[in-house]
Amino acid sequence: MTHTPVAIIGAGPAGLTLAHLLHHNYGIESVVFESRSRQEVEETVRAGVLEQGTMRLMRETGVGDRMDREADIDDAIELAIDGERTRIDLAGLTGHHMAVYPQHEYLKDFIARRLADGQPILFNTTVDDVTGYDDDQVTITYTGEDGGQLQLTADYVMAGDGSASPNRKLITELPGAVRSKHEYPFAWFGILVNAPKTQKELIYANSPDGFALISTRSDTVQRYYLQCNPEDSVDMWSDERIWEELHKRVSTDDLRVAEGEIFDKAVLRFRSAVTDPMQRGRLFLAGDAAHTVPPTGAKGLNLAVADVSVLAPGLARAIKKNNTDLLDQYSALAVPRVWKAQHFSYWMSSMLHTVPEDPYFQTQRSRAELRSVLATEAGRKYLAEQYVGIDLPTFEV
Amino acid sequence: MTHTPVAIIGAGPAGLTLAHLLHHNYGIESVVFESRSRQEVEETVRAGVLEQGTMRLMRETGVGDRMDREADIDDAIELAIDGERTRIDLAGLTGHHMAVYPQHEYLKDFIARRLADGQPILFNTTVDDVTGYDDDQVTITYTGEDGGQLQLTADYVMAGDGSASPNRKLITELPGAVRSKHEYPFAWFGILVNAPKTQKELIYANSPDGFALISTRSDTVQRYYLQCNPEDSVDMWSDERIWEELHKRVSTDDLRVAEGEIFDKAVLRFRSAVTDPMQRGRLFLAGDAAHTVPPTGAKGLNLAVADVSVLAPGLARAIKKNNTDLLDQYSALAVPRVWKAQHFSYWMSSMLHTVPEDPYFQTQRSRAELRSVLATEAGRKYLAEQYVGIDLPTFEV
Ligand SMILES: Cc1cc2nc3c(=O)[nH]c(=O)nc-3n(C[C@H](O)[C@H](O)[C@H](O)COP(=O)(O)OP(=O)(O)OC[C@H]3O[C@@H](n4cnc5c(N)ncnc54)[C@H](O)[C@@H]3O)c2cc1C
Ligand SMILES: Cc1cc2nc3c(=O)[nH]c(=O)nc-3n(C[C@H](O)[C@H](O)[C@H](O)COP(=O)(O)OP(=O)(O)OC[C@H]3O[C@@H](n4cnc5c(N)ncnc54)[C@H](O)[C@@H]3O)c2cc1C
Repeated sequence: MTHTPVAIIGAGPAGLTLAHLLHHNYGIESVVFESRSRQEVEETVRAGVLEQGTMRLMRETGVGDRMDREADIDDAIELAIDGERTRIDLAGLTGHHMAVYPQHEYLKDFIARRLADGQPILFNTTVDDVTGYDDDQVTITYTGEDGGQLQLTADYVMAGDGSASPNRKLITELPGAVRSKHEYPFAWFGILVNAPKTQKELIYANSPDGFALISTRSDTVQRYYLQCNPEDSVDMWSDERIWEELHKRVSTDDLRVAEGEIFDKAVLRFRSAVTDPMQRGRLFLAGDAAHTVPPTGAKGLNLAVADVSVLAPGLARAIKKNNTDLLDQYSALAVPRVWKAQHFSYWMSSMLHTVPEDPYFQTQRSRAELRSVLATEAGRKYLAEQYVGIDLPTFEV
Repeated sequence: MTHTPVAIIGAGPAGLTLAHLLHHNYGIESVVFESRSRQEVEETVRAGVLEQGTMRLMRETGVGDRMDREADIDDAIELAIDGERTRIDLAGLTGHHMAVYPQHEYLKDFIARRLADGQPILFNTTVDDVTGYDDDQVTITYTGEDGGQLQLTADYVMAGDGSASPNRKLITELPGAVRSKHEYPFAWFGILVNAPKTQKELIYANSPDGFALISTRSDTVQRYYLQCNPEDSVDMWSDERIWEELHKRVSTDDLRVAEGEIFDKAVLRFRSAVTDPMQRGRLFLAGDAAHTVPPTGAKGLNLAVADVSVLAPGLARAIKKNNTDLLDQYSALAVPRVWKAQHFSYWMSSMLHTVPEDPYFQTQRSRAELRSVLATEAGRKYLAEQYVGIDLPTFEV
């Protein structure tokens, strides 16, 4: 049995960003456990939009080079109502850009950097049990690559093990703890397509037939989403139906959604969930383990990064200065931002989608809302500031 | 039987403003029918907030003097979360003020002006029937003060007869016409109190116990509202309960809601309704006859004024130039603003109230939304611009 200051469960955005911040900013060692293989982690396509704070964190901690070279760094996004597109000049309105940079590329950079730093990521290694978090030392029981069960002790443990985290229950079972959820009456049908870009900038399209999002993963791979029924299955959407709906919802005389071979189809459920508090004793949650946001606001990865931007200095102060004041405040500092991200995601979702119940009233109202937002600089700026994201918090250690 | 260019049903904001604009701006005569007595019209307390465009219209058409002298003209409103108040500097953010000027004072000014102009308002006169609107001439059948039934012919008729308008059906019965409604899961318990002002500026308070609004009618009469259940009846709210709830929701160490004798209690239902189109042949709807907004946005009176700001020049061009192009476009021009007002009212309502279903998620989310709005200048400006109201449209005749 060996010991580490910080055990980290999960090599997702939460886990890898925390491990990197601890090492790069404070010289603190940690062990990252990841049940999947490196290849699987590096190939799973999920989120794709980086907030300005996330971009800045990458640059300031030496993992931003490839992102700066390869990401689509955009000045703007477009919002459309019935094909009439309005540009939201993010750069002009906020002084910031946005980056379309797939989550697996983000993860590749953090994995490469961590391995170059000589720091451990245990791939194909599953954490089975976490104990001792209410006492002086945490014990992690895990199954390694060879199938044998081992243990590691740690001063602190961060569960960044995603939305199905079993560790969350250790917190939510406490009296007074909250797990708040919300279900949405719509979902996204997401596809990956071998096609050139439809245009440089993302298009969020509101139409009477439902929402569509024209996004991208690279110059040759595009990511499109269509509003669908949460009960829909993949086989209900033939390629033909997909293209028909995409054109109806987005294409106009001067812009045609670029078609190509569809090589991935999936239905994305819309869920919101918040856990409060996000800590218990020596156990801390971050990212999807603590909260889920619907994809419309593109806040999932960024919220994981925001969490660990509070947690890393909190842990560092505790470990290096033996002072837990910031660590004790972790939830109090992180949860308000989670609610703001929930609001933004909920707002973008309800403003852009067609609501199946009360469709006429809600459709007309949300279009009027979108028109009110788009018609004035204040409205566009209010949206743009939330889209590029508020600054990440910084703390002295 | 006599004839008038424009017959106007209802001496509410819609009817009286239209009559005044037609006469003052274009020298066009009309007859206003009002089933209630002048005294009743001048004493019914309803709306209380004037948009900048409404204030401007009053000034520009010579009925703004008393408003300028007697209204509470405010630079700002305050929004509170759990007693923590944030000032929305309307004047600084938009260059405009808001006026708290009771609807019955507005009506008094328009009635006085119309009578001074020697123009007719038939009080205690009820319109029983409207015919001929699909043909060349409208016939109005009405019962006068003495109980006898009479007729009047008109080139056009405007039904400004409020939310129960029987004339609306003449339009909504047509194929393709829409009457869209929405019910809200909350209501307002409104009281009138003999008390001094709590403070100069209005307070919109979000609290875990529900919304409250501290408004005013004069230096000695205050108007307070408390979120309540739509099923509540007046006798469920004792004076004691009212004060307890008001203090819980609004009062803080440095601000105490001014108490006094409560002389009026009423439950206000929250409803949205939109009629589209708002016209058929020679018949036009304006104000509450066409649409209802919940009171949170304070848009009811102002929307009636906005409607007739399109209708008056439309009628004038038709009557004086024999050109109905603008009149034909009345609905197309008026309805988008109605939806924007619905959005604003719905938004303010859902952001400020506690939603009975899904209370934890929605309460935390809407507080986060309110915090996002209040935290940035863009957010405050987005709200302020909608609060003071977009400019009224103007048209050459
Ligand atoms: C299809 C899809 C599309 C999305 N699109 C967007 C988007 O456009 N924008 C956006 O911002 N967000 C999006 N998201 C959300 C975003 O991907 C997540 O918010 C983000 O991945 C959260 O990061 P995380 O580190 O908290 O969790 P995860 O990325 O889920 O990482 C958790 C990791 O923990 C590992 N793990 C779990 N249990 C164990 C265990 N017991 N032992 C060891 N390892 C374990 C898992 O294998 C996984 O690698 C999307 C999500 C999905 C699923
Ligand atoms: C209690 C209350 C509080 C409110 N508070 C606010 C607020 O804070 N802010 C806000 O902006 N709005 C508020 N409103 C809404 C606002 O008062 C209305 O939007 C506004 O009165 C609409 O004006 P109108 O001219 O269309 O209709 P009304 O004011 O309803 O006028 C219609 C008139 O037509 C007359 N009439 C009806 N039928 C006939 C007939 N057959 N023949 C002759 N005359 C007829 C009626 O007697 C009435 O005088 C409130 C409404 C109520 C009821």
